[in-house]
Amino acid sequence: MGIEIERKFLVAHDAWRSQGEPVLLRQGYLSSHPERVVRVRIEGSRAVMTIKSKNTGASRGEWEYPLPMEDAAEFLDKLCEQPIIEKYRRRIPFGGFTWEVDEFLGANAGLVVAEIELPSEDTQFDKPDWAGEEVTHDRRYYNSALVAQPFSKWR
Amino acid sequence: MGIEIERKFLVAHDAWRSQGEPVLLRQGYLSSHPERVVRVRIEGSRAVMTIKSKNTGASRGEWEYPLPMEDAAEFLDKLCEQPIIEKYRRRIPFGGFTWEVDEFLGANAGLVVAEIELPSEDTQFDKPDWAGEEVTHDRRYYNSALVAQPFSKWR
Repeated sequence: MGIEIERKFLVAHDAWRSQGEPVLLRQGYLSSHPERVVRVRIEGSRAVMTIKSKNTGASRGEWEYPLPMEDAAEFLDKLCEQPIIEKYRRRIPFGGFTWEVDEFLGANAGLVVAEIELPSEDTQFDKPDWAGEEVTHDRRYYNSALVAQPFSKWR
Repeated sequence: MGIEIERKFLVAHDAWRSQGEPVLLRQGYLSSHPERVVRVRIEGSRAVMTIKSKNTGASRGEWEYPLPMEDAAEFLDKLCEQPIIEKYRRRIPFGGFTWEVDEFLGANAGLVVAEIELPSEDTQFDKPDWAGEEVTHDRRYYNSALVAQPFSKWR
């Protein structure tokens, strides 16, 4: 098991757009239950299943296993809770860490979220100027929550 | 993907007890949703994750992946829906097929179910005399359903 420690922010403006190469991520959930998330993700030629335990603070347990691409595609198309999540991810190096900026598509179009993964909960880090309000603890922004309550239905 | 075609029966009497060697199975669910079951199982020194799609008739899609034993044990103890399912399984050859007789423990003690896996839905097969009423289509007997509604709570 790994421990994932992640902080999540909205973006304040669009300067992230010119940084990093956008990569399409398609992901869906066999379980979106907060206690035991089971996520299927395809990124380029790589498919993985990720199990996540419940959040405590900004940390959660995370286990990852490779999946055959054919199985992952079938899970996303037929088995996962619908709609699946599609987003462009940009990986942007800043201040010694990698920021991941996710630009959502489909039912979540308009939503952009920036995440940073940290080695410990009290690690200090600098924020790029395009990083806005922190939403780490706002469950609406969990990707697993964006299936049942997509961003386009919030307003 | 494999297709699993399975028929399920209660047992009429105890003659199965003297046949086959009982092996302990511990299994739990990361998802018990009928549309997308995610099962973790430990049998002896082998641990697997199995994804099952929704039943249509006696058939369902099934995908199986090996798991590290340490991860499987942690899932069963901490992550899966509680209580987990524990049962002794006996594999009994009869009429050219293998019958699996599951004797449940814990909250499902008293329940014994016999299953046969078939190559197609219309395959003919002989029943051993200890095979009783068929319960293939009774959802209460789904292992995933026995977590939330264990046999001991039925009466």
